[in-house]
Amino acid sequence: MERDGHIGLPVNYGLLVFPTFQALDAFGPLDILNLLSRDFPMNLSIIAQTLEPVSTKHRNPSLNPLKSNFGESIVPTHDFTNAPPLDVLIIPGGYGLRANDLDSLYDFVKRTYPSLKYLITVCTGSWVAARAGILDGRRATSNKNSWARTKEVRPNVNWVAHARWVVDGNIWSSSGVSAGMDATIAFVEKVYGKEQAKKIAREMEYERHEDPSWDPFADIYNLPNLN
Amino acid sequence: MERDGHIGLPVNYGLLVFPTFQALDAFGPLDILNLLSRDFPMNLSIIAQTLEPVSTKHRNPSLNPLKSNFGESIVPTHDFTNAPPLDVLIIPGGYGLRANDLDSLYDFVKRTYPSLKYLITVCTGSWVAARAGILDGRRATSNKNSWARTKEVRPNVNWVAHARWVVDGNIWSSSGVSAGMDATIAFVEKVYGKEQAKKIAREMEYERHEDPSWDPFADIYNLPNLN
Repeated sequence: MERDGHIGLPVNYGLLVFPTFQALDAFGPLDILNLLSRDFPMNLSIIAQTLEPVSTKHRNPSLNPLKSNFGESIVPTHDFTNAPPLDVLIIPGGYGLRANDLDSLYDFVKRTYPSLKYLITVCTGSWVAARAGILDGRRATSNKNSWARTKEVRPNVNWVAHARWVVDGNIWSSSGVSAGMDATIAFVEKVYGKEQAKKIAREMEYERHEDPSWDPFADIYNLPNLN
Repeated sequence: MERDGHIGLPVNYGLLVFPTFQALDAFGPLDILNLLSRDFPMNLSIIAQTLEPVSTKHRNPSLNPLKSNFGESIVPTHDFTNAPPLDVLIIPGGYGLRANDLDSLYDFVKRTYPSLKYLITVCTGSWVAARAGILDGRRATSNKNSWARTKEVRPNVNWVAHARWVVDGNIWSSSGVSAGMDATIAFVEKVYGKEQAKKIAREMEYERHEDPSWDPFADIYNLPNLN
């Protein structure tokens, strides 16, 4: 039914970026959607605090002990004041979320969420949603390497330790980095249909994990089976 | 031995970009290397024909039939005239490689290759290496969706149809899109050691394919077992 034409399908996507975002958290989901945008009319806004290019490089020198000069910059199309109405917002994670000057980021998510059809968070991108207050009382996940910190970010979220991704209402949260790809393909399957998801995974030559409870990484980090 | 300090390890990496590159071809490998650059001193140059941001959006309107406005732009740090000496060059693929105005790209690869320690191509990035003439008589692979076209690009390459990735001398070529991640982690394992590869895959929560001959996509496209 959803696939009878494009009526009711999400059109306007946004990616939120901040200094020291994790590249694959953003570009894994985005490249799935890049392919999808050949078959469905879609627009992407890349939203940051300013229109200056946003780099994956570490802001905090202690996280770059060998003084590598290694990173990539993406160009925003909008800032927090002029972003267009969105149907879907994607929030990547990254070390940059350990900074304490991100209030405008949380404010943007807080005021944008009510008009979204869907919110997708990848890795510690769920910290942003949590700090914006929109995960309170909801189930969500995050990456497994930083689990202890995740629980401190917002204890009143029902953090799910064992999950590749979690869906609660219209919020899709994925586990660490590459998990964002599995969550996004699952999202495509749910919203655009099973054939579309299969087609994209095939085009990307990607063997997706289809089971949201698949999570060997939770075991590697000895996380409890309960939340 | 290679891991006794950093002596002899590659330091200066380059990513080659062109309009309508495939985002994950670039950012899958790059994010692996982003993580590696915390443990090893590494520099990245992003190299394009000009210093203008380079977009994944389709140049060719026939490839964007629904007029989506969906894509991401990366900021080059160098152009073909001022790129620094490189140890490793990474070439992503993408629909942009069907354009016929890319001679300066091929020239750059042709004159850069002799001083590289390693060349890594992802997806149809191997077309660039092939057109630069440096794959003649070598084994290489490419994505499986465009296999017929790949063989026409340069028949005097020993194109390997069934492969997640192929190593011939110092040239690593991977199959389509997500295969670049497996090839790059295998490259990290070979050059920086097994523990480093494991650590990065764990940090990315990525279940890597470790067998270079794993290739269910070649079967999907009914490619012959022989080249």
